Amino acid sequence: MKINGTHYRSLWWNHENNVLEIIDQRWLPHELRIQQIARLQDLATAIVEMRVRGAPLIGATAAYGMALAMAEDPSDANLDAAWAYLEKTRPTAINLRWALDRCRRALQPLAETDRAEAALTLAHEIADEDVEVNRRIGENGLALIREIAARKPAGEPTRLLTHCNAGWIATVDWGTATSPMYQAHDEGIALHVWVDETRPRNQGALTAWELGSHGVPHTYITDNAGGHMMQHGLVDMVLIGTDRTTRQGDVCNKIGSYLKALAARDNDIPFYVALPSSTIDWTVSNGVAEIPIEERDVRETTHVQGKTEAGAIESVQLTPDDTPGGNPAFDVTPNRLVTGLITERGICPATPEGLSDMFPELARGVE
Amino acid sequence: MKINGTHYRSLWWNHENNVLEIIDQRWLPHELRIQQIARLQDLATAIVEMRVRGAPLIGATAAYGMALAMAEDPSDANLDAAWAYLEKTRPTAINLRWALDRCRRALQPLAETDRAEAALTLAHEIADEDVEVNRRIGENGLALIREIAARKPAGEPTRLLTHCNAGWIATVDWGTATSPMYQAHDEGIALHVWVDETRPRNQGALTAWELGSHGVPHTYITDNAGGHMMQHGLVDMVLIGTDRTTRQGDVCNKIGSYLKALAARDNDIPFYVALPSSTIDWTVSNGVAEIPIEERDVRETTHVQGKTEAGAIESVQLTPDDTPGGNPAFDVTPNRLVTGLITERGICPATPEGLSDMFPELARGVE
Repeated sequence: MKINGTHYRSLWWNHENNVLEIIDQRWLPHELRIQQIARLQDLATAIVEMRVRGAPLIGATAAYGMALAMAEDPSDANLDAAWAYLEKTRPTAINLRWALDRCRRALQPLAETDRAEAALTLAHEIADEDVEVNRRIGENGLALIREIAARKPAGEPTRLLTHCNAGWIATVDWGTATSPMYQAHDEGIALHVWVDETRPRNQGALTAWELGSHGVPHTYITDNAGGHMMQHGLVDMVLIGTDRTTRQGDVCNKIGSYLKALAARDNDIPFYVALPSSTIDWTVSNGVAEIPIEERDVRETTHVQGKTEAGAIESVQLTPDDTPGGNPAFDVTPNRLVTGLITERGICPATPEGLSDMFPELARGVE
Repeated sequence: MKINGTHYRSLWWNHENNVLEIIDQRWLPHELRIQQIARLQDLATAIVEMRVRGAPLIGATAAYGMALAMAEDPSDANLDAAWAYLEKTRPTAINLRWALDRCRRALQPLAETDRAEAALTLAHEIADEDVEVNRRIGENGLALIREIAARKPAGEPTRLLTHCNAGWIATVDWGTATSPMYQAHDEGIALHVWVDETRPRNQGALTAWELGSHGVPHTYITDNAGGHMMQHGLVDMVLIGTDRTTRQGDVCNKIGSYLKALAARDNDIPFYVALPSSTIDWTVSNGVAEIPIEERDVRETTHVQGKTEAGAIESVQLTPDDTPGGNPAFDVTPNRLVTGLITERGICPATPEGLSDMFPELARGVE
């Protein structure tokens, strides 16, 4: 999407210098820093240190990692070594492993001399596919926004609420939950997005940065505010992403999503979740009972990073010394609270039948 | 309550030096700073700058302000002037006006020579009454905790979740929502308190400081976490305070309370609200429709104060420059989500009849 008028992806290949370029997201939302990556080691560091983040983007980055590895040494031994080396960078990210497997499977049968070029071509393909999947999610979600906008009184924007950053910088472009927003805005629909802060990591600041840079009107609010705003008719639709969707349509997403789903239901507001089909976990049915929730570092809740008056990026402690903190990173919204799932193939009900009718070839494997 | 073994109130009279002493709460939870106040002007500044905060505490502080004023000049003119001067310090705090009116009414009929002493005695009375009201709230809430604790398996603490700081430092002592917790802990019931961070002003850090200083086991969590914890059976009861309760039992409290009430209902967890009867607004019935919600400074959401590595108290910016923020300070939890109201007189249902049966003499005035 655009950053102050210029179109960006979250990573791209610099054909002139034969290097990968990424946005070093550690400095967002305060600074836009671009990094050139020419070596496999630097790419792995970028994943480990969360310079790139978001499952789809990590997958695409890893594919470029395989390309860098093949340019250095296209041997069978190095193909396996690069796979193993990259696979360790973020062990829980599903897309990482998926991308690495796909690259190795495609490259293994090739002659060593062909591997470097083929790996780079494949990385481009994986990145482009991600863009296309998210573009389609946006197209499908756009239809919903158009319907709401058509019913609004003149002069009143369609007001969406989102949680976390399911944005273009977590994918290669468009984002998931943000894709319908960008497409609606680009076709001239008046939008206003309420952006949940999303404690403890404040990914709402990234979403605010994205939307602001592209020119989409928005307001940054605390995670506590959304229920009150729904009670007062200020939200037309909730639209979030997901890290994992079960085969019955339960949605595991950033902690706090469940509370927004409850408030949406209590106020008869549609609650939609945008996702590529790759995030559906067909092996899990009841998300609340079956999905283990990652408990992250307590310091994320007791400290927060921001920009000081002097312009430095610093971390400050919010709590008394040695306060015990709890930090579950995700929660599960039961399917009964989800109005619909917006996928690259269309919108379906958050039910076992809804998902298996939409993706019969994927559902079949586990029935 | 206790700070590391020593009992404190949030204000007290220093009889030796004839000055008021307060805890300057701007430095909490990072530093305990005591301030002596000898002059009316300094006391007004303490209220304006939120060195003292919380409606009950502001009321008691204002009463001491009248005492300081009468010691300086006990004339009729100064009685009115002090009333008007203090009344302006926090125009929206109900208890402030209530305390000032009570002082003026009591002092006006007295001879000027008697006013200084009478004003100080009255301030002590108002402070002591606040302590007694909160102690009784605690006693009534304690009965609920005892019941839950009696049903717990051996070795498992009773787990309460609270939002904001309805603690002893917002009153003269005990607090409202915290009073049952302190009493349960003091009589040896094993407790664990989940403390909501309470963005944007992070009053949860004050609650964590209080509980930690008194020795009550607790964990600081983000506002997003509570729903997930309730889904997983980790919360036995939600217990919060309130800034204003309507005559039908709707509860206006710190923003985000409504979301916790929804989650408690969705998981069959009791949701109780502790309040002195002085916070019931008998003129309002439907809280969602009738209570105007204060929209506070956007900077509270876009910036946060904490302690730097070097130990300085500093504010950092969380969002991109010039991000538009929204900051509604309170929300209303409809009475249908409230299990019961814990008052100084007993526990009653959050219904018009529940409240008017408990406080017939107060309800009568508006029927």
